[in-house]
Amino acid sequence: MELSKRYGVFLLLICLFLSLASQLSLARPSRKLKPCKHIVLYMHDIIFKGNNSANATEAAATSPVGLGPFSFGQVSIFDNPMTKDQNLHSPPVARAQGFYFYDMKTAPSAWFAFTLVFNSTEYKGTINVMGSDFIPAKTRYLSVVGGTGDFFMTRGIVELQSGGFVLYEYFRLKMDVKLYECY
Amino acid sequence: MELSKRYGVFLLLICLFLSLASQLSLARPSRKLKPCKHIVLYMHDIIFKGNNSANATEAAATSPVGLGPFSFGQVSIFDNPMTKDQNLHSPPVARAQGFYFYDMKTAPSAWFAFTLVFNSTEYKGTINVMGSDFIPAKTRYLSVVGGTGDFFMTRGIVELQSGGFVLYEYFRLKMDVKLYECY
Amino acid sequence: MELSKRYGVFLLLICLFLSLASQLSLARPSRKLKPCKHIVLYMHDIIFKGNNSANATEAAATSPVGLGPFSFGQVSIFDNPMTKDQNLHSPPVARAQGFYFYDMKTAPSAWFAFTLVFNSTEYKGTINVMGSDFIPAKTRYLSVVGGTGDFFMTRGIVELQSGGFVLYEYFRLKMDVKLYECY
Repeated sequence: MELSKRYGVFLLLICLFLSLASQLSLARPSRKLKPCKHIVLYMHDIIFKGNNSANATEAAATSPVGLGPFSFGQVSIFDNPMTKDQNLHSPPVARAQGFYFYDMKTAPSAWFAFTLVFNSTEYKGTINVMGSDFIPAKTRYLSVVGGTGDFFMTRGIVELQSGGFVLYEYFRLKMDVKLYECY
Repeated sequence: MELSKRYGVFLLLICLFLSLASQLSLARPSRKLKPCKHIVLYMHDIIFKGNNSANATEAAATSPVGLGPFSFGQVSIFDNPMTKDQNLHSPPVARAQGFYFYDMKTAPSAWFAFTLVFNSTEYKGTINVMGSDFIPAKTRYLSVVGGTGDFFMTRGIVELQSGGFVLYEYFRLKMDVKLYECY
Repeated sequence: MELSKRYGVFLLLICLFLSLASQLSLARPSRKLKPCKHIVLYMHDIIFKGNNSANATEAAATSPVGLGPFSFGQVSIFDNPMTKDQNLHSPPVARAQGFYFYDMKTAPSAWFAFTLVFNSTEYKGTINVMGSDFIPAKTRYLSVVGGTGDFFMTRGIVELQSGGFVLYEYFRLKMDVKLYECY
């Protein structure tokens, strides 16, 4: 009988520990270390110059305001193809639809908000993203603030790296989409 | 005595199961299936044409850029009434304040970001929303990315469906606001 | 023996209670009451008037549309310094980069989306914010919808209060950044 009592107390302690452990994990999840989903895509942005409607994927909706030499105040709208490799002519696996504007007078820096729209056999749904892109930095970080469909309620970050660039014509952004909340 | 021991073990197992269940629900909540709050509202958007200040609730801040026939690049600001039924003249229960812009050259498609502002006896607070609205689709999905007041820290989705529509004058959007995180 | 049995049942009840408590806290955390981080900052916005490039931190990218007397439709881009006290000339500890637009015809009201960019010894990272700012209210509430770096995946609210104000020249906003999810 003494043995069974000790056994009971032992089980109780395990149980108590598990209860506490589940409460702790609520306060500070270890989700930071390991994304539940990681998607690498390249965004291609072809700037509209008035005579390239067939190819253009982005257009300025406002003009720079004259505050510094880095297009401060210019707002651009885009519907850009996303590919799995750096090649502009690879089949798009998603679209990036949204806008950015230049917002610094001393450096090229942009603020982005956009939706990654997936409509393929692999994924159907959207990922919503926003944040600041200080272009001179090697890597910049945006926030994934929500999602729908296959990306229902997701959260995470997007790591940006610049790729090909032709002034006033084209730029490419590598996006490391790291999701830490998946449902 | 044997009986009470078995009874004890039985209780311990229940306890253990509850502990584990609460941990599982942390890792993968079943929140997808059942919103903690569901609000259905209709947004009414009356376009400003220069001579209808009294009624207008939305106005274009920029002009289309000429990239395709679907107003690509036009940015519109709005402060729209939200009603509980389809009738524009029903008493508003909230406002939708924000903006949208057209972002496709081959189809009517808009990108939205806005705040639902509630200030009634029923609700006081805000719900912040963003996402892409491909208008030809029967149902589109935006993300609820945050909230304040009665909607403190909320998350979820908004299902959009088009309703009444008069070109260049008026459109109505049905919004199914489904919240899956409520505090 | 009767005593030890009662003791066992007592422990079981405690254990059961903790299990249930941890489940309840998942559904309705008490995070509302106590932020995991609270940062108070003052944002300074100096409006560009065409001849003050050296000092200006914000510029209008579009003009008001003529819908009411409160600049409806004017979109402004900013890269504003954030200081720890009300003094514009204190050393900035962060930048607020983003935009706002006026969106009401009957009152001064703005809609904001911006990134707080920290790059100091104290913090490195970003906080992404959006929401509606009904300026006549003493306190307004925006949503913190995400973050990166030291603010990885954070969520919360920003409480806004107006401070100094010089029409068409300068305004100051006190921001109480209250974070309720910290990783």
